[in-house]
Amino acid sequence: MSPTKSLPLIEPVADEAVEPCCPPLTERTFTAEEAERTAKMFKALGDPVRLRLFSAVASHESGEACVCDISDVGVSQPTVSHHLKKLKEAGLLTSERRGTWVYYRVEPSVVAAMGRLLTGAPSGVS
Amino acid sequence: MSPTKSLPLIEPVADEAVEPCCPPLTERTFTAEEAERTAKMFKALGDPVRLRLFSAVASHESGEACVCDISDVGVSQPTVSHHLKKLKEAGLLTSERRGTWVYYRVEPSVVAAMGRLLTGAPSGVS
Repeated sequence: MSPTKSLPLIEPVADEAVEPCCPPLTERTFTAEEAERTAKMFKALGDPVRLRLFSAVASHESGEACVCDISDVGVSQPTVSHHLKKLKEAGLLTSERRGTWVYYRVEPSVVAAMGRLLTGAPSGVS
Repeated sequence: MSPTKSLPLIEPVADEAVEPCCPPLTERTFTAEEAERTAKMFKALGDPVRLRLFSAVASHESGEACVCDISDVGVSQPTVSHHLKKLKEAGLLTSERRGTWVYYRVEPSVVAAMGRLLTGAPSGVS
């Protein structure tokens, strides 16, 4: 009898409060819980340095960037790392360590969901 | 000789840094100036109470609302007024006084421009 081994299921990274949610802002007054979740994402982009870093990652050729790729926004590397971490905590970026560097990539479903909140397109599974 | 009186010209309300700008965030790294302008708008929605108030105005039946219409977000009327003013300063709402009350209305072009930054639709004159 060949031994079987149960492999762990690959689970989506469980960053808390990251899942995109909520109807367009024009549909109805948000509940306190919806507002709490969604405000976090907007807040993450509500800082000029973070917004520049986000655009740097989002527009980087391979669709991802590490701190080593981003040096032209006029802040130190630890500051870059700090802000990229904040963007990740807000669910806007995902990260993966490869060797020395952590590579960041835009989370398209979350960003698209934020866009839909504003453009009024119906929410739904993306 | 009849005296003449120079009347002040009616100028558009000069909210500074309100005009929607900038390409989609995926297009290129934002300049410092673009990031400064755009972060203000995201920051305005980066607070749960403001986000609820914004959704209350945006979803109100006539497309506008006064402080008198918004009483169910669990904060005092002066706090509501304070936050609505912040949203106005960020260019997301416009306001008009009628009698006792100031009525707030969503500025669709600014909100749509924010949506386009995220959804990646080409920017342009709205």
